[in-house]
Amino acid sequence: MAAFHCIQALRFPSRTHVFFPVGEQNRYNIINKKQRGFLVFASADKKSDKEIYLKSKVETLLDSVKWDDKGLAVGIAQNVDTGAILMQGFVNRDALATTISSQKATFYSRSRSALWTKGETSKNFINVHDIYLDCDRDSIIYLGKPDGPTCHTGSETCYYTSVPDLLENKQVDGNKLALTTLYSLETTISQRKAELALPQAGKPSWTQRLLLDHDLLCLKIREEADELCRTLEDNEDQARTASEMGDVLYHAMVLMAVKGVKIEEVLEVLRKRFFKSGIEEKRSRGQAS
Amino acid sequence: MAAFHCIQALRFPSRTHVFFPVGEQNRYNIINKKQRGFLVFASADKKSDKEIYLKSKVETLLDSVKWDDKGLAVGIAQNVDTGAILMQGFVNRDALATTISSQKATFYSRSRSALWTKGETSKNFINVHDIYLDCDRDSIIYLGKPDGPTCHTGSETCYYTSVPDLLENKQVDGNKLALTTLYSLETTISQRKAELALPQAGKPSWTQRLLLDHDLLCLKIREEADELCRTLEDNEDQARTASEMGDVLYHAMVLMAVKGVKIEEVLEVLRKRFFKSGIEEKRSRGQAS
Repeated sequence: MAAFHCIQALRFPSRTHVFFPVGEQNRYNIINKKQRGFLVFASADKKSDKEIYLKSKVETLLDSVKWDDKGLAVGIAQNVDTGAILMQGFVNRDALATTISSQKATFYSRSRSALWTKGETSKNFINVHDIYLDCDRDSIIYLGKPDGPTCHTGSETCYYTSVPDLLENKQVDGNKLALTTLYSLETTISQRKAELALPQAGKPSWTQRLLLDHDLLCLKIREEADELCRTLEDNEDQARTASEMGDVLYHAMVLMAVKGVKIEEVLEVLRKRFFKSGIEEKRSRGQAS
Repeated sequence: MAAFHCIQALRFPSRTHVFFPVGEQNRYNIINKKQRGFLVFASADKKSDKEIYLKSKVETLLDSVKWDDKGLAVGIAQNVDTGAILMQGFVNRDALATTISSQKATFYSRSRSALWTKGETSKNFINVHDIYLDCDRDSIIYLGKPDGPTCHTGSETCYYTSVPDLLENKQVDGNKLALTTLYSLETTISQRKAELALPQAGKPSWTQRLLLDHDLLCLKIREEADELCRTLEDNEDQARTASEMGDVLYHAMVLMAVKGVKIEEVLEVLRKRFFKSGIEEKRSRGQAS
């Protein structure tokens, strides 16, 4: 994930911004010597050299993509923290070049025959951290962090229409997102929490008991953490470690639900701790100075 | 995520298998009364009725998809546990209908002008648990569990070519997958573990100290779990909870690296615990009986 963090967008009004690789930094006007990456936008003192360099690097990359007969490839925007697929569109040469330089997910709108940066109207940009091509080089992932809901309907992602629900003639309510395991579990725990406000039918579930009894919840979290450690200390098997880690995760997620904290926020903490981007580094140094 | 778990494929040699909704079960020959879903494949006693029913439900669904001028929509296969985008292909009416009935991710191969079930050659099927359409109904997610590496190159996913690496002329080694935060962290910890086998240059990192000193690691896990609990007990703010949960996750992931357990295995444990599918229920009952 770290690779694209390296790309810094340093904006200087009314100057041309171009790329150059880290190895080439000293040939040019270095703006951020500490940045860990390979490409930066910099103010252009040797404009023509750098523009030529940029053009050749990006053009070679763009040439390597297998564009279809309409000059398009599939572009998929994915949340870098949660893995949720936010939206899918089509990308042409200009859209990919624009995404590389602006770090905002940009597509080609087939209906309007124009470039389209997601968020240009809604301001819900997708801030791209990484870009990947598939083995055939005709499919692109923009791995990024959305500023807000991605879908024009206000939904977090565009994928909220379940085929099983359609087959069952269920109302599609826009709230049933395509969720992977961790986020399905988070949603289930949230639902149990919401049900606590309703008249109770029967005994509360185990999740509800934990949500209501914080002493029990904390007792269980400490106990499960201890059991996870004991799988190492007592040399238990891998299946036991996976199972105890599942227990730790589940109980900790119930605590997070009590506190109103999302897994995505935790992952953002971890990303910023372990994979601080050049942009963030520069910002934090700017604030400190 | 639970919705598509409901679809059961009950195979009876030389009988026709069709769908019907749960509400309609008693009209037909019910195979599994305990299944929690809305559609099952069943042996066909009233073949024509059921075939008509099936045809109409699925045809209505297929009609609702916005197929392009070639009769295709984009199909994206995503790992239900990790969220990794496994591959992207194109889907036509038959491919979607086949995926619904077989629960194996099926695409339309444009180069071969034929249906193509991922895994039909390699046996690395993608077992589909859920299917989602996007807001425009021209893009489809197959949320599933792969039997093995998805890419024909043997890579876990088809997305291992980093655009920043290409721009930097780095060797694309097929091992740098597009990873979201949790899996980037898992990879970083694995790398620190692998580096322990190499001649050491300088002081070990904190992760390496934890990997080497299991007493320290377990002390930290118990301590971080305690600190997470105290954010609830002492009514600390949400940012504190997110930060402490980040600490719990990171330290627990170091323990998992020591034990050689992957996050994906933990998520599989949680999925099976919380979202047991009809198929798995039937299998486990079959084994018990």
